[in-house]
Amino acid sequence: MTDLATELRHVLDGRWAHVREEARTDLSPADFAPPREELTMEEYRARVAEQVQKIAATGHPARGFATEVGGNGDLGGSVTAFEMLGHADLSVMVKAGVHWGLFGGAVANLGTAAHHAEYLPRIIDATLPGCFAMTETGHGSDVQSLGTTATYDPDTDELVVHTPDLRSRKDYIGGAARDGRLAAVFAQLVTGGEGHGVHCVLVPIRDEHGAPVPGVTIGDCGAKAGLAGVDNGRLSFDHVRVPRTNLLNRYGDIDEQGHYTSPIDNPTRRFFTMLGTLVRGRVSVAGAAGSATRTALALAVTYAGHRRQFAPPGADEEVVLLDYRAHQRKLLPALATSYALQLAQNELVSLMHDVQSQGDGADEHRQRELEARAAGIKAVATTHATTTIQMCREACGGAGYLAVNRLPALKADTDVFTTFEGDNTVLLQLVAKGLLTDYRDAFGDLDTLGMVRFGARQLTGVVIERTAARGLVQRLIAAAPGRDSEKGPTDRGWQLDLFEDREKHLLETLARRLRKAGKPGADAFGVFNDAQDHVVEAARAHVDRTVLEAFVAAIDACTDRAAAAMLGTVCDLYALSTIEAHKGWYLEHGRITPARSKQVTAAVNDLCAVLRPHAQTLVDAFGIPREWLGTELLEPVA
Amino acid sequence: MTDLATELRHVLDGRWAHVREEARTDLSPADFAPPREELTMEEYRARVAEQVQKIAATGHPARGFATEVGGNGDLGGSVTAFEMLGHADLSVMVKAGVHWGLFGGAVANLGTAAHHAEYLPRIIDATLPGCFAMTETGHGSDVQSLGTTATYDPDTDELVVHTPDLRSRKDYIGGAARDGRLAAVFAQLVTGGEGHGVHCVLVPIRDEHGAPVPGVTIGDCGAKAGLAGVDNGRLSFDHVRVPRTNLLNRYGDIDEQGHYTSPIDNPTRRFFTMLGTLVRGRVSVAGAAGSATRTALALAVTYAGHRRQFAPPGADEEVVLLDYRAHQRKLLPALATSYALQLAQNELVSLMHDVQSQGDGADEHRQRELEARAAGIKAVATTHATTTIQMCREACGGAGYLAVNRLPALKADTDVFTTFEGDNTVLLQLVAKGLLTDYRDAFGDLDTLGMVRFGARQLTGVVIERTAARGLVQRLIAAAPGRDSEKGPTDRGWQLDLFEDREKHLLETLARRLRKAGKPGADAFGVFNDAQDHVVEAARAHVDRTVLEAFVAAIDACTDRAAAAMLGTVCDLYALSTIEAHKGWYLEHGRITPARSKQVTAAVNDLCAVLRPHAQTLVDAFGIPREWLGTELLEPVA
Repeated sequence: MTDLATELRHVLDGRWAHVREEARTDLSPADFAPPREELTMEEYRARVAEQVQKIAATGHPARGFATEVGGNGDLGGSVTAFEMLGHADLSVMVKAGVHWGLFGGAVANLGTAAHHAEYLPRIIDATLPGCFAMTETGHGSDVQSLGTTATYDPDTDELVVHTPDLRSRKDYIGGAARDGRLAAVFAQLVTGGEGHGVHCVLVPIRDEHGAPVPGVTIGDCGAKAGLAGVDNGRLSFDHVRVPRTNLLNRYGDIDEQGHYTSPIDNPTRRFFTMLGTLVRGRVSVAGAAGSATRTALALAVTYAGHRRQFAPPGADEEVVLLDYRAHQRKLLPALATSYALQLAQNELVSLMHDVQSQGDGADEHRQRELEARAAGIKAVATTHATTTIQMCREACGGAGYLAVNRLPALKADTDVFTTFEGDNTVLLQLVAKGLLTDYRDAFGDLDTLGMVRFGARQLTGVVIERTAARGLVQRLIAAAPGRDSEKGPTDRGWQLDLFEDREKHLLETLARRLRKAGKPGADAFGVFNDAQDHVVEAARAHVDRTVLEAFVAAIDACTDRAAAAMLGTVCDLYALSTIEAHKGWYLEHGRITPARSKQVTAAVNDLCAVLRPHAQTLVDAFGIPREWLGTELLEPVA
Repeated sequence: MTDLATELRHVLDGRWAHVREEARTDLSPADFAPPREELTMEEYRARVAEQVQKIAATGHPARGFATEVGGNGDLGGSVTAFEMLGHADLSVMVKAGVHWGLFGGAVANLGTAAHHAEYLPRIIDATLPGCFAMTETGHGSDVQSLGTTATYDPDTDELVVHTPDLRSRKDYIGGAARDGRLAAVFAQLVTGGEGHGVHCVLVPIRDEHGAPVPGVTIGDCGAKAGLAGVDNGRLSFDHVRVPRTNLLNRYGDIDEQGHYTSPIDNPTRRFFTMLGTLVRGRVSVAGAAGSATRTALALAVTYAGHRRQFAPPGADEEVVLLDYRAHQRKLLPALATSYALQLAQNELVSLMHDVQSQGDGADEHRQRELEARAAGIKAVATTHATTTIQMCREACGGAGYLAVNRLPALKADTDVFTTFEGDNTVLLQLVAKGLLTDYRDAFGDLDTLGMVRFGARQLTGVVIERTAARGLVQRLIAAAPGRDSEKGPTDRGWQLDLFEDREKHLLETLARRLRKAGKPGADAFGVFNDAQDHVVEAARAHVDRTVLEAFVAAIDACTDRAAAAMLGTVCDLYALSTIEAHKGWYLEHGRITPARSKQVTAAVNDLCAVLRPHAQTLVDAFGIPREWLGTELLEPVA
């Protein structure tokens, strides 16, 4: 690795660089690489279950749990380790994420001391494999409307967990089909005939021999597009009884007299407070999507650097693919975006670590900021993964279609990332809702717009903060030249101004449209629905802006001059290819002139040419051990 | 099926409607549906091989061969039948396409009477399974530079077929790994120390027991992203000897004295003439991509029509997904594009049938037009397939990720379509090259630009004709209102004018850029390469224009008033969503005002709302038998 690649890697590795280094050493491909032989689904599942046990044996999963419950309390390190698992077999990453992240996270965050003492040691060492049973056949995005019930029976002091209909069957549940023993089941809690909204109850689903317990029907989701090593299944409960104390009772409890109590009166607010504690899942998915995307780019860029096709007239030697402008145009803007997203992800993980390390003392405002940021980055990073891995497959032609070259599994395994842990379209609406609280005086309670049910809590102030780079960004914008001045499109202040302006204008015009919904007799849902594409676009513009600001902050913090200069060029390509993608909007709204728009396209081409000689360095800087990339794509054939 | 759906189906079914009807009846899902059980790769391959035998037993494959060689001479019917196979298991479609279309097509089109008599009967009845061995590990797009050699040995009157290095190994060859007996091998033909360019030679690769013949080494490409039932493999030849008469000698022959002769003197022209006869492969892939895309849309639209999520404030019932604007925006423009592409495909198949039915008497000009049209439609239809099937998967959430719901296989199986039978980026350059012959006086011989090697023949006149609808289109454009007049964006003449204007401007400015390459001392390749993104965009604009014109022609020919009106609305959505996608370009070049640009976006939203109640009718009109869609997505769960 060149010095420059090493310096760039330091920047990309960020605050938990030591965890990344540890993973690069410990996650030996011998144990954790994707399978190269043909496996039946059952063999693959068995292999992944074993790999999870190997991870348990390293002791690392303790990082994700607070010290007072037997963990190491290094939440950021835990999420970074999941991100590194994204370079290995993604079935292992998801299976581990379900057990420790989702199931373990539910017990840790929604349970109290007794649950922690009883379950967490066996969760940390993976002797009690668990499931996170939230999604139902009929409800995925709108989990507040789940149909499963948990009804308190005062006669026996038990909760009766029941699946009233097929729509309420738990579906797509990782770990359900084969290995799970205990499930964290989300259900409508009912006491004395009164509903208290969705709560989480621990329900055993298999006995110590692995057989379903009485009353629990387990189905298998069978083959999927990818993630064949994850045993997704279906759970139905026929009046299954568990002790009252199996309710994870941090945010809502039933006392010995059968009375329900909660520290949060409003049921909606209560539910979203619970959900908010589970934000780590989204952060982890965004991270793993980033790892898989970087793996694909490392493969496609390396291949494009030696694969030749077509000799120019009069030349003997054929042209290397990466020397073709069309090929640079495919790979290099995506590479720049991957840099931007990794730096934004690092900021997100850091925020998450700081907020969640404070436990109950966490600042609610910061917690909400974290939730919005996680939703936005997850949506953008997973969409980028799907698009980019697809492009990388195509950029490698027939070779990219062979399983031995990893791209097929990277594509198939990450495909579901855009819709699980929150559908991206729904998540962006959640982000927009957070942003609109700035404008709430203009149109009153957002809940009347039907937006509350898209998963955000009712908010009481400006939620979306400026990023860490705010002061710097303001200085850069202030120093920016006027519109279409002599300074070229690589002026950072000009770029930042355009990103910010787009976000601001989209939000202001959105707020104006939605104001109509507050009028007497208005069809509030109709108004919201007519603006739905606008809502999604505004949220996307917001995320783009925060990602650019994260990039700017990382360059500012980089002390190595050569690395900072290279990052500056990569940032230009990210910013300008993003502006180019939205040039229709900028022109439509008079933000750029046609002449400047053409300059932007020319600048993107120029930046591709400037970065082309450094493309290999830029993917080397991802620090992906070569053994993890072990395919036919890395070396030219003789 | 409603009357309207039936009328629409008549339009979509086109000239070979009877072949489609026959397939709807004959291709029983019991025999041809994708496998629902878990199969090993070997089991899947065996199953597909059996299905090919079942197809052979129907006698239908005779359609694809001329009557004088034992076929029925219904080329258009043959390609339409392949298109229908695209609704069934795509592994079967590809396996059948390799055997009858590519291998059989090579023997029929490149061989002469003796080859036809000896091989075609056994090819038609599939007792002689074949391979089409063109692509090599080192050469896919640039097949003119293949490394395999076929050297004439006058001492024995044989051809010696040899693989000189690993780069020259035949790779990704369908049928090679398991079933193929005889391969049509493309190799550099050498006689008396002189090379004559690439020719095709028949080489046995397995004996009657299925064992590789001496000198032939067979490898297995192993698992792939999709098409698991196709046995793609690798072939290497170690001085394998075959009789001289195994050369398919229609365009180049070796006489008994060992002298090479050809009716075409120029080796490049000769090679591309040979390739041109094989155009049917590209037409078939475009057709199958269309079928797979329509299957995905039928699934996703049907699902979106009953799947509910989130109740508006105060409402009891949740909203159906297809009532959300964001969901309409995903599905309906893609649906409109699928209509447009099917109508353009029908025109292409008809052109192919008419040109190829003339045999040697075919008009060379029309043949070249056919090649260019096939390249363009193949590129656009397969890119649309990849994007749309991905979107449909995501629109179905977790359910879309389950194999039982077909979307995973549709995505994985069609994924390679964008890069096989010609990489789409390369194909669009081929299209552009054809268009640029209009401008050749401006910059001389295109070959000096390095463009010849992208697979087009040197052309001698205006190749890309106006479509069948030309007269009508000119009348509509003439009647179109002026720019941004009172007439709205749904004026057809205005839409046609914008499409045509974009193509024309992109071509003219491209020609101007490339003129520099003709100057003395110019770096011709550099000039071409700098403009490569422009080249691709110009070609794409051309294909978009021909597709719109095909749509307009089909509406004009539709005699049912209700169907014609509905098609008109679908055509508006296709045209305006395409203009919207390029609004940056139109604004940059002063073709539309910002106000008109916003009107276009508003019109796309309005058209989505107008078509939403008819969405199910529009997918029903695809005429896909319900048994072929047999998944969990079709009916709501109780």
